[in-house]
Amino acid sequence: MSAQELHIISTGKQHLEQFVEIASEIQDDVDFFHLREKQMNASELYRAVTLLQDQKIPLSKLIVNDRADVAWTKQAFGVHLAFHSLDAAVVRRAFPGLGVGCSVHSMEEAKVACQQGADYAMYGHIFETDSKRGLPPKGVEELQAITSNVSLPIIAIGGITPSNCQSVLEAGVRGIAVMSGILEAKNPMEAVKEYSKSLGKER
Amino acid sequence: MSAQELHIISTGKQHLEQFVEIASEIQDDVDFFHLREKQMNASELYRAVTLLQDQKIPLSKLIVNDRADVAWTKQAFGVHLAFHSLDAAVVRRAFPGLGVGCSVHSMEEAKVACQQGADYAMYGHIFETDSKRGLPPKGVEELQAITSNVSLPIIAIGGITPSNCQSVLEAGVRGIAVMSGILEAKNPMEAVKEYSKSLGKER
Repeated sequence: MSAQELHIISTGKQHLEQFVEIASEIQDDVDFFHLREKQMNASELYRAVTLLQDQKIPLSKLIVNDRADVAWTKQAFGVHLAFHSLDAAVVRRAFPGLGVGCSVHSMEEAKVACQQGADYAMYGHIFETDSKRGLPPKGVEELQAITSNVSLPIIAIGGITPSNCQSVLEAGVRGIAVMSGILEAKNPMEAVKEYSKSLGKER
Repeated sequence: MSAQELHIISTGKQHLEQFVEIASEIQDDVDFFHLREKQMNASELYRAVTLLQDQKIPLSKLIVNDRADVAWTKQAFGVHLAFHSLDAAVVRRAFPGLGVGCSVHSMEEAKVACQQGADYAMYGHIFETDSKRGLPPKGVEELQAITSNVSLPIIAIGGITPSNCQSVLEAGVRGIAVMSGILEAKNPMEAVKEYSKSLGKER
């Protein structure tokens, strides 16, 4: 089995410069960085991508949340769409070559993302996590059902740690997404190495 | 002298359905409708353009604020950029054929918009207006200076009424933009006709 993908999602709370610094440190072990900064306007997002580029993080590893225009003008890998974003099918048609991912919360939504031509779906939250406090986690059984029934790469997110990672991988995901587990770790470099080992990226 | 353009800017406060209804009524006398709805997400903006289309308002009359991606996917006439938006030059390059306008507040900004390849600049506010209460208006003299020194079509905005319109037109603008003066008029149809007369659209 080849190694699964590690996606890092920005927290929306860190200073941009801090995120860029950590990203630069850990980038060798990371497949994709998602800029998920809802408070940022288009001008700020554009600048954020520029800062990441300046740190030699390849555009092919960058995914911009919601703003297809920023992703497109920067020639980033892709755009990640939420319920409040443009439809995946619309983006697919208008932005040929741009990667398209969708946040999904059910089998039904994963099937829609697949029909709309998305390149991947991000599903969660799998386990309990502080960022979704009070909302029941989806668990790995439903995750397994989705990867079995929807022919779309699934990235799992939410409360995934190096120690519970194995059950997620066994559910057939393309990869996992981590936010605070790495970006807010005391030592992000050590944290990413632990995740990498769990993902089979290091032997 | 041929008639100048009349741009209508949505207020950001009206119900979308009400705006669409008024737009449908007055569209024969209007050159461009700007969707300036900062509270709307991409999905809502996309739907707003669809509703306007359903009322037979041509895409060639529609300009979307800030979201180049929505304008592009809908093949609207263009996108209107503010200071928090992507740069005009960036949008111009990445979205060939999409109209690009910029909000400007000084001669300097108008020159930058021109250098960046914008199709027009919107300048204001010219007169006192409730939506810019407490901020000193720019006046027609500075407007005249800009139209004389910057080779970019200028659309004037802010407190323009059928009665003060003449001095604005004489300052050499390509057109005027109106928000509440028409959209919040008791009778928008009558109001637009008065503006049209002042613009030389009706004889």
